[in-house]
Amino acid sequence: MEFVGANILSIEQFERADIERVFDVADAMEPYALRRRVTRVLEGAILGNMFFEASTRTRVSFGCAFNLLGGEVRETTGFASSAISKGESLYDTARVLSGYSDVICMRHPEPGSVAEFAAASRVPVINGGDGHNEHPSQALLDLYTIRKELADKNRQVDGMRIAMIGDLKYGRTVHSLCKLLKVFRDLHLTLVSPAELAMPDDIVDDLRGAGHQVQVSDDLTHSIAHVDIAYSTRIQEERFDSRREADLYRGRFRLNQAIYTQYCEPNTVIMHPLPRDSRAAANELDEDLNQNPNLAIFRQTDNGVLVRMALFALILDVVDQVDRCARPVNWYNRRH
Amino acid sequence: MEFVGANILSIEQFERADIERVFDVADAMEPYALRRRVTRVLEGAILGNMFFEASTRTRVSFGCAFNLLGGEVRETTGFASSAISKGESLYDTARVLSGYSDVICMRHPEPGSVAEFAAASRVPVINGGDGHNEHPSQALLDLYTIRKELADKNRQVDGMRIAMIGDLKYGRTVHSLCKLLKVFRDLHLTLVSPAELAMPDDIVDDLRGAGHQVQVSDDLTHSIAHVDIAYSTRIQEERFDSRREADLYRGRFRLNQAIYTQYCEPNTVIMHPLPRDSRAAANELDEDLNQNPNLAIFRQTDNGVLVRMALFALILDVVDQVDRCARPVNWYNRRH
Amino acid sequence: MEFVGANILSIEQFERADIERVFDVADAMEPYALRRRVTRVLEGAILGNMFFEASTRTRVSFGCAFNLLGGEVRETTGFASSAISKGESLYDTARVLSGYSDVICMRHPEPGSVAEFAAASRVPVINGGDGHNEHPSQALLDLYTIRKELADKNRQVDGMRIAMIGDLKYGRTVHSLCKLLKVFRDLHLTLVSPAELAMPDDIVDDLRGAGHQVQVSDDLTHSIAHVDIAYSTRIQEERFDSRREADLYRGRFRLNQAIYTQYCEPNTVIMHPLPRDSRAAANELDEDLNQNPNLAIFRQTDNGVLVRMALFALILDVVDQVDRCARPVNWYNRRH
Repeated sequence: MEFVGANILSIEQFERADIERVFDVADAMEPYALRRRVTRVLEGAILGNMFFEASTRTRVSFGCAFNLLGGEVRETTGFASSAISKGESLYDTARVLSGYSDVICMRHPEPGSVAEFAAASRVPVINGGDGHNEHPSQALLDLYTIRKELADKNRQVDGMRIAMIGDLKYGRTVHSLCKLLKVFRDLHLTLVSPAELAMPDDIVDDLRGAGHQVQVSDDLTHSIAHVDIAYSTRIQEERFDSRREADLYRGRFRLNQAIYTQYCEPNTVIMHPLPRDSRAAANELDEDLNQNPNLAIFRQTDNGVLVRMALFALILDVVDQVDRCARPVNWYNRRH
Repeated sequence: MEFVGANILSIEQFERADIERVFDVADAMEPYALRRRVTRVLEGAILGNMFFEASTRTRVSFGCAFNLLGGEVRETTGFASSAISKGESLYDTARVLSGYSDVICMRHPEPGSVAEFAAASRVPVINGGDGHNEHPSQALLDLYTIRKELADKNRQVDGMRIAMIGDLKYGRTVHSLCKLLKVFRDLHLTLVSPAELAMPDDIVDDLRGAGHQVQVSDDLTHSIAHVDIAYSTRIQEERFDSRREADLYRGRFRLNQAIYTQYCEPNTVIMHPLPRDSRAAANELDEDLNQNPNLAIFRQTDNGVLVRMALFALILDVVDQVDRCARPVNWYNRRH
Repeated sequence: MEFVGANILSIEQFERADIERVFDVADAMEPYALRRRVTRVLEGAILGNMFFEASTRTRVSFGCAFNLLGGEVRETTGFASSAISKGESLYDTARVLSGYSDVICMRHPEPGSVAEFAAASRVPVINGGDGHNEHPSQALLDLYTIRKELADKNRQVDGMRIAMIGDLKYGRTVHSLCKLLKVFRDLHLTLVSPAELAMPDDIVDDLRGAGHQVQVSDDLTHSIAHVDIAYSTRIQEERFDSRREADLYRGRFRLNQAIYTQYCEPNTVIMHPLPRDSRAAANELDEDLNQNPNLAIFRQTDNGVLVRMALFALILDVVDQVDRCARPVNWYNRRH
């Protein structure tokens, strides 16, 4: 795809070469995200960070990614203050707001709304999540994390074994990740969920059509025994008839250090799109995993900044200029 | 008027030379707003963008204007988080908040509140709208748009013919615009509204006192037949006894492409302060006008950034320095 | 204490030398806060300004302090948009959010929450107020103001006479200030409150244990007759059985210009943590004091910016570099 000036609305836009391109640029962003260097390549540019639905981490991650490239961020959160509540069309909102910034990141509860907005926008638009539909930067950061974690163990995405665990029926994250995985080769996927929350058939069919091996299971321990990646998601209580019923499922999908030690291969990477539920009997990833070096959930959110910096740099055509505008960091950084 | 260090509270402050000065500076801001150049003239300065009443577009427009001059923006929206809700006086709020920034833009639902705030502030204050009272930057951007649209057709504000349409009784926008128009010469104004929503007598008297010809009408098609500008506003349902009654009026004041083609001169410019209502039977400007090159509603909001940049540059006395701190833009811009 | 990379969670961290160090750096920040010079020493750094409880003035003060050092601010206000509302632990929130910024300022209604957050954070955390527990930068700015106001009169904190007036039982501000005052010598404190709202015994004991003279009173005029500082706080109506009862107390603790002239020494400095209540019969500091040059309440909030700049500069280890990145201000400043 041509990144310069593009809208990023759906992972369906990305072919394998596009994914690799994003990831190579994300790799190059690391010195800036780790505050080893500062770049001002987007100094003077403005991101319109329009969150018509709340999402602290996605909003802040996009905002910081733009700041780390030297740009400014103007933010809107919620509907209350919006002309949309006075009956304004998305077309009008897009025409107006795109006059203020150089690029827009938009989250909106309505599926398809971001694409409708982007069609009227005069500047490129990144979909920051449109209801149950798409959240492409999340899928990209998940796959980027998988690639990076495997590379640390001298493995590749091609040929990897991955288990996806939890609510696979409604989980936007796992749907998008599966779509991205279609462009890779020889994957072994195990889909672990209660039967009622199984992965939709069309997604399974697509994975098989892409040549991958797909197994379906409702047993956690057996499924995570031989995988490179265990990707866990939240069991969403509100989907069940009763809390009691939800708790039954949750009981079977909770991963903790004892289970990890007993069943997993020693290098199995644990992922989760977050937030994970910390309430007793609800936590799909127990806190006793926090010291496990293969728990990658916070490297996942860190990688979100890299991937979003890469998308901004590609869309605004400054990839080759990032390093030229760089200088050393002169303040304390506890991360190092 | 002396702009340096001034509060911008009311359009009554502006004489004709002042208006021309703002517009000349706004013209000079265009390369920056269009991202042909970047300036950092206000680098290190802080705008306190205090929106005690919600208004996404005005808030973002002011914030972007300040960012485009290189300054930072610290924002507050809503009352909930404010000490005002604990009984603090506007005097105290102003003394405290003016210690944090270099200039303040303030919106507040109470008429007169911004002037009261400004009297106590230690930095210049721009009125971003105080209830039904004033919203001077909106009036300036409307007039700036009129001037610019007419200039493209080799016409001037002096001598122009304008129709104002809709709720002329309560519409703050049209009241302010009329006050600004007093300093021009030989205007022909047609005021189109239901009798119940007619322009207040004192404003009409002032316009006539300024030597302008004013006609009153409640017929849309006849009134827009021979004008340079058709300025439409929202019929506000909540003013009427019933929705049914409001719809009767709305039926007569809806402009669409068919009416435009049949009744208007080919160069008639269509304006609207936005938001326009997109709901069926409520849209005063039909969406089939969106491709009409004389629909200036989005150029209007774009011009808001120019006018606000001009006000900041004038108040903070950096007009002559803007270009000296400029450099080319190095990122992609779909606008060009 | 070692400031570089430190969390600022409690005033108990500060020994006398630490306090002096903060204040010396705060003094050095004045040219920047007064816009006599601009510095960009933190250009590229990001403050995560996380206000899980509303507080306009503290939030904006921290944000402006960071901007004045050249850094960017990414802000979150309220709980609604937070994953915390989906059951996420503070540990997870801290791990995620600390991946986005270089330093975090956090306010949270729950006592101890900021320390818990800081323990998991990968970047330094400043406590911006955790319920009734601590608000260390407020205590520091109060003491900094006392030192500065006394210095203008050729006096020192050691040996000073101070009256604290109002709700001394629940007032977080006066508790914290008393704790800071323990490291000074020979103070004369008069604690003025209704008996029901007296300063807790342990704080009084600590003050006496530090060698200070402490008197308790419920009479305003007598108590402010011979003090250098009169530190007034809000009588919080909600603590009383009835409004009527609260008003009785308030009647005795209201300071106005007539009382000041009749009872106070001419140089007595008036302070208040703000907001002060402006409603009739509720204002502990009458508005007729606004022209009194010894009313230091707005110098107090101004000093908050200096103290917060100092904390950022110390924690991020850029104290020695601030002046090297400085240049003159080129825009209008009404303050001068």
